[in-house]
Amino acid sequence: MVVNIALLGFGTVASGVPFLLKENTEKIKQAAQDDIRIAKVLVRDDAEKERLQAVGHDYDFVTNIDAILSDESIQIVVELMGRIEPAKTFITRALEAGKHVVTANKDLMAVHGSELRAVAENHGVALYYEAAVAGGIPILRTLANSFVSDKITRVLGVLNGTSNFMMTKMVDEGWTYEQALQTAQELGYAESDPTNDVEGIDAAYKAVILSQFAFGMTIDFDDVAHKGISNIRPEDVAVAQELGYVIKLVGDVQETESGVSAEVSPTFLPKQHPLASVNGVMNAVFVESIGIGQSMFYGPGAGQKPTAASVTADIIRIVRRLKEDNVGKAFNDFSRPVQLAAKDDVKSEYYFSITTPDENGKMLRAAEIFNSEAVSFKQILHQASDGQHARLVIVTHEMSKTQLENVTEKLNTVSDFQVGNIFKVLGE
Amino acid sequence: MVVNIALLGFGTVASGVPFLLKENTEKIKQAAQDDIRIAKVLVRDDAEKERLQAVGHDYDFVTNIDAILSDESIQIVVELMGRIEPAKTFITRALEAGKHVVTANKDLMAVHGSELRAVAENHGVALYYEAAVAGGIPILRTLANSFVSDKITRVLGVLNGTSNFMMTKMVDEGWTYEQALQTAQELGYAESDPTNDVEGIDAAYKAVILSQFAFGMTIDFDDVAHKGISNIRPEDVAVAQELGYVIKLVGDVQETESGVSAEVSPTFLPKQHPLASVNGVMNAVFVESIGIGQSMFYGPGAGQKPTAASVTADIIRIVRRLKEDNVGKAFNDFSRPVQLAAKDDVKSEYYFSITTPDENGKMLRAAEIFNSEAVSFKQILHQASDGQHARLVIVTHEMSKTQLENVTEKLNTVSDFQVGNIFKVLGE
Repeated sequence: MVVNIALLGFGTVASGVPFLLKENTEKIKQAAQDDIRIAKVLVRDDAEKERLQAVGHDYDFVTNIDAILSDESIQIVVELMGRIEPAKTFITRALEAGKHVVTANKDLMAVHGSELRAVAENHGVALYYEAAVAGGIPILRTLANSFVSDKITRVLGVLNGTSNFMMTKMVDEGWTYEQALQTAQELGYAESDPTNDVEGIDAAYKAVILSQFAFGMTIDFDDVAHKGISNIRPEDVAVAQELGYVIKLVGDVQETESGVSAEVSPTFLPKQHPLASVNGVMNAVFVESIGIGQSMFYGPGAGQKPTAASVTADIIRIVRRLKEDNVGKAFNDFSRPVQLAAKDDVKSEYYFSITTPDENGKMLRAAEIFNSEAVSFKQILHQASDGQHARLVIVTHEMSKTQLENVTEKLNTVSDFQVGNIFKVLGE
Repeated sequence: MVVNIALLGFGTVASGVPFLLKENTEKIKQAAQDDIRIAKVLVRDDAEKERLQAVGHDYDFVTNIDAILSDESIQIVVELMGRIEPAKTFITRALEAGKHVVTANKDLMAVHGSELRAVAENHGVALYYEAAVAGGIPILRTLANSFVSDKITRVLGVLNGTSNFMMTKMVDEGWTYEQALQTAQELGYAESDPTNDVEGIDAAYKAVILSQFAFGMTIDFDDVAHKGISNIRPEDVAVAQELGYVIKLVGDVQETESGVSAEVSPTFLPKQHPLASVNGVMNAVFVESIGIGQSMFYGPGAGQKPTAASVTADIIRIVRRLKEDNVGKAFNDFSRPVQLAAKDDVKSEYYFSITTPDENGKMLRAAEIFNSEAVSFKQILHQASDGQHARLVIVTHEMSKTQLENVTEKLNTVSDFQVGNIFKVLGE
């Protein structure tokens, strides 16, 4: 038998799907037990259709979603347009029309995932989105299936290839943020408006989805604190190296006694931590759990073929489940009421960089402030800078978010202190 | 509803299963949709039973497998005894009695896997063994499910925790093989007879199973060439570091034009390769494929809780499939006739360590031999050793197994050459 699918959009990733279906016909046929045929492809307009036909693509191109929704021979709709609209409307209508949906759309699934999953459930159809987090790494299915027996306590991830490429250059080559951004843009890794990548927004979308699979809690995007890499200075990178760390943009979702906490921020990783050697555009998700302990899943975070591999695995899974007559099964069964962690329960070591006049007593003043909040020091560096100023670098022992806020506020009230970057430090 | 399971054996791993069932009741219940109860536990004899009862275990201990096989309320049998017999007989009889089986037994699945899978298929029951390869890393299910759309070209793995612990000490601390082995034995990582771990036999078992999942080919254990770490000398370790490599015991299964090749051998890994930083008792499986490209799955290779996490995930999967009425599905669908690679097609760079009299002309003689087989050099080191002898270290460009055999044979005919270790070198 043949299962007909439709692609919404025919950009880079979409064209990777027919590549894999063709290169892997025999293996896919064994797994899916049916042939998979791309019956229709939605493109923007006639101009795009003609452009694609001119380069040899002979799909049945359509420019109106209704041509796909009303085609009863199409069982699976694969959304690869990205962004919120019209993807959201098209996916909703496809689910309502009884079609199974595969998407790689992280923005959409992070912000409107609950709503879309409810529509899928109400219509007894599948909605799979493995490619939405860390494109080529099969992390969502792994969390849903293989960690089903385990209790996850923390998920740490290098989740954005663009910013990781930039950080790798800033760490390994000593480039400034501006140099790294320019090269990332020249290589096509960063868009002309790089905000989503460099400010941690893209990684925060992924943290929302990871939280759903790892902790069964669909937290709001607004509850993911995110801080990007644009403020990282070469002196932060240098001092990190001196103290035995590598700075990376890290997504961190953990469960504390009071609930779940999710954030994305530049983080000092100990050099021997497995995430510290995840370089360039590669992604990795590091999982801490009571059973397995520590595990890590590493691979490309984006790109045509890696993303298409995840999308196509989802398609095959649906085809197989159609055969087995259990296709309505949710991508992820694990679900609990959302409970956010209290600030007192979210703890970490922190790095503080403070510029002060190079005078006696400044270190004492800083020490008094940390001590007043019961925060102790792990590492201290005092560097004279321009003769008039000194740079005070402090790595603390573990402190809570509450302590962090209090210390920061007190430091800011000291007119002699110019508080620079404050970054999370992962303990050994 | 309650699904009754029986454990065969109650050693370290087995006791991790009730730990996870208890710690994760809510999550497991959501996924399995039924409660899972350990109805019977098979132990060796009354003495073991009494010993376990004395420390507070109140399971229904039995000493005869028939008490489990004849109990119709038991649907799943979990074999955790290890070794070939009586595990093989017990699993066979359980499958024949219509019971689903979960096992962590790599020796058994590597050597008798085909036979046992056939019995399972004939009786329409499940036989899962995620824990058999790299205990805590969910690599088999990931290969079966997430790589279903992708074509794997090579799987490289650090698959034996004991030997990797020893190699890490030999590389990082400069220990000899003998020192590393003694410490591994003192820490309980190595058995008093360490042969299976240090000679690559255990890793070869895992390579057989990986080949089945990655390439659909169930190769014979005897077709996995295996070489262990016991001949590695401190000078090999030192020269590897000097040339930018780390030596590890690596399982390597790849598909060439003519077929599949599998071997386990000490391998020079470039320092920046993701496998190079897999240290201590940790395992990792590195996958190369046409879709995803490069990915790696990292975690503990053994241990009570990691192995129990994989075993329990298999149990939950079976319980869920019982509910969905598709429990007979094979663990791995991918199956092709076995075709072994021709020697000419299996290519790699190689490291040669040759001791010669410290006289003129020896390097020339070696160069002539490599040149006569059309093998070129990538890196050469010439080290005077004791005044009378020199050590010639050669890293070649890619050469086939045929070329390797010919070069080795010719080197061995030169009476002045004492050919030491020859190791595979992974290209960048």
